[in-house]
Amino acid sequence: MRNIKLTLEYDGTNYFGWQKQKTKVTLQGTVESVISNLTKEAIEITGCSRTDSGVHSRGYICNFVTNSSIPSEKFKDALNVKLPDDIAVLKSEEVPEEFHSRYSCRGKKYSYTILERPMKATIDRNYVCQCKYNLDIGKMNEACKYFIGTHDFSAFKNKGSSVKTSVRTISELYVEKTGNYVKIFVSADGFLYNMVRIIVGTLIDVGIGKINPESIKNIIDSKERTNAGKSMPPQGLCLEEVYY
Amino acid sequence: MRNIKLTLEYDGTNYFGWQKQKTKVTLQGTVESVISNLTKEAIEITGCSRTDSGVHSRGYICNFVTNSSIPSEKFKDALNVKLPDDIAVLKSEEVPEEFHSRYSCRGKKYSYTILERPMKATIDRNYVCQCKYNLDIGKMNEACKYFIGTHDFSAFKNKGSSVKTSVRTISELYVEKTGNYVKIFVSADGFLYNMVRIIVGTLIDVGIGKINPESIKNIIDSKERTNAGKSMPPQGLCLEEVYY
Repeated sequence: MRNIKLTLEYDGTNYFGWQKQKTKVTLQGTVESVISNLTKEAIEITGCSRTDSGVHSRGYICNFVTNSSIPSEKFKDALNVKLPDDIAVLKSEEVPEEFHSRYSCRGKKYSYTILERPMKATIDRNYVCQCKYNLDIGKMNEACKYFIGTHDFSAFKNKGSSVKTSVRTISELYVEKTGNYVKIFVSADGFLYNMVRIIVGTLIDVGIGKINPESIKNIIDSKERTNAGKSMPPQGLCLEEVYY
Repeated sequence: MRNIKLTLEYDGTNYFGWQKQKTKVTLQGTVESVISNLTKEAIEITGCSRTDSGVHSRGYICNFVTNSSIPSEKFKDALNVKLPDDIAVLKSEEVPEEFHSRYSCRGKKYSYTILERPMKATIDRNYVCQCKYNLDIGKMNEACKYFIGTHDFSAFKNKGSSVKTSVRTISELYVEKTGNYVKIFVSADGFLYNMVRIIVGTLIDVGIGKINPESIKNIIDSKERTNAGKSMPPQGLCLEEVYY
C-alpha cells in the first residue's frame, strides 16, 4: 500500500464545496471517482480542509492509499486527462504512511480578492467580491497588525463547526492593491469556520472608515461575533498554500 | 426619437457571440430583449462589431433608437437590474442621431491573455489561453514593430467575412508579462476576421523561437494566410476599447 499526496488547483464555482455529499456534486466526490476509475479500487481521499461552496484553490492538498502500480508522479498526468476542466492535479508524490492531509497540516495561506468599483463584477464575478466604496489600503494594513499573533478568535468564527479551542496564530496578514483589485493575504496555523471571510469583512469596515484600525484589538478581546464585520461571500476566497 | 449609446462589459463564455441568432443565446439577443422589455418597444440595437463565441469585452459599444422617456443616464441602472450576471452596462448616454456604433467607429483596442505554464488553466480557463512553452517577451516585442503601420494584412485573415480591402493600420501592438501571465495589446483602425487571434498565434511562434522577429515582414508581404501562425482560441481575447 502506498500513500499518495496530490496538490490540486480548482475553480470551486460549480461545486458544493470539498466534502462528499450524497446528492450534490462536490470536489471530493469528483476527484475520488476519477481516482477510483483509474485504479479500479474504492478510493477514499482525505482532504486538508472542507472548503465551502464557491471557494477556489491553487494548492489544495489531499492524499489517498492505493495498491495500484501506477508510479506516484504519473498519477498527475493520468488524472488530469480524466478530471473536468475546472480541476487539475499540479503534483502527485508518494508520502510516508503516517502523512495525513488534515492532521499533519501546520498551516494554510488564503487570499481574498475584492474588485473596488461602483459596478457589479461581470467577467470575474466568480472570483472576486465587488466593493462599491473606495478602500483605504493604508488603514487596512494598519488594522492587519492587530490580528497578527496568537489570539482567541471567537469573534471571527461563525457557528457550524465544533472545535476545541478558538485560539489560532496568524503569522501574516496584509493587503495589496493593483489597479482596482484589492487582495488580502492571510496565513495561520489554522482557521475557524468562515474566519478569513469575517476578517475580510472587518478589514473592509476599516477600509471604508466605519471603524478605526485600533478597534480591532477590542473586537478580538470581546470574543463577540457581533462586534466583527460581516462574512464576505465565498467567491473571492482562494486557498493558496498548505504547510506541512 | 433619441439615439442611446451603451458601453457594455461582458463575459462571453456563455454566449454564441454578439450577433443575434434565431435558436442560440447571443449577447445582442439578450441585451435587445432586456431593453425591449424596459421600453415596451421592439428595440433593435447596432453593435460596434460581431465578437465571436467566447470572446469578452470591457468596453463594447452599441446604440439603439427609442421613444422612451427614460433619461439617458438612467438606462444604465434600469438595464443592470434586469441583465444577467455576466453582462453590465458601464455607461448610457444620448448621442447625435447620426452616431452609428459600427460606421462611426475609428478604431478598437483588444487584449489577449496567455497563461504560460505546463499545466492546463483551471480557475481562469475561460479567460486565458494556456501555453506550455516559455515565451521570449523581448523577441515578441521586437516582432511587434513589424506589424505597426499600414499594411495589407491578408496573411492575418481567416475566411468568413467579405471586406473590400485587407489594408489596416495598426497603431500599437505590445506584449507585457506579469507573473506567468503574458498579455498582448493591439490597437488598429479596424480588424480583419480573426486578425488578432492570428497575430497572437504568430507572436507565439516568435516567442518559442520557431520563427525570427524579422520574418514578420516577409509574412505580411506574402499576403499568404498559410505563412502566418495559427488562430489562437477565443477565450483569451477581450475587446478593451472602441474609439470614435
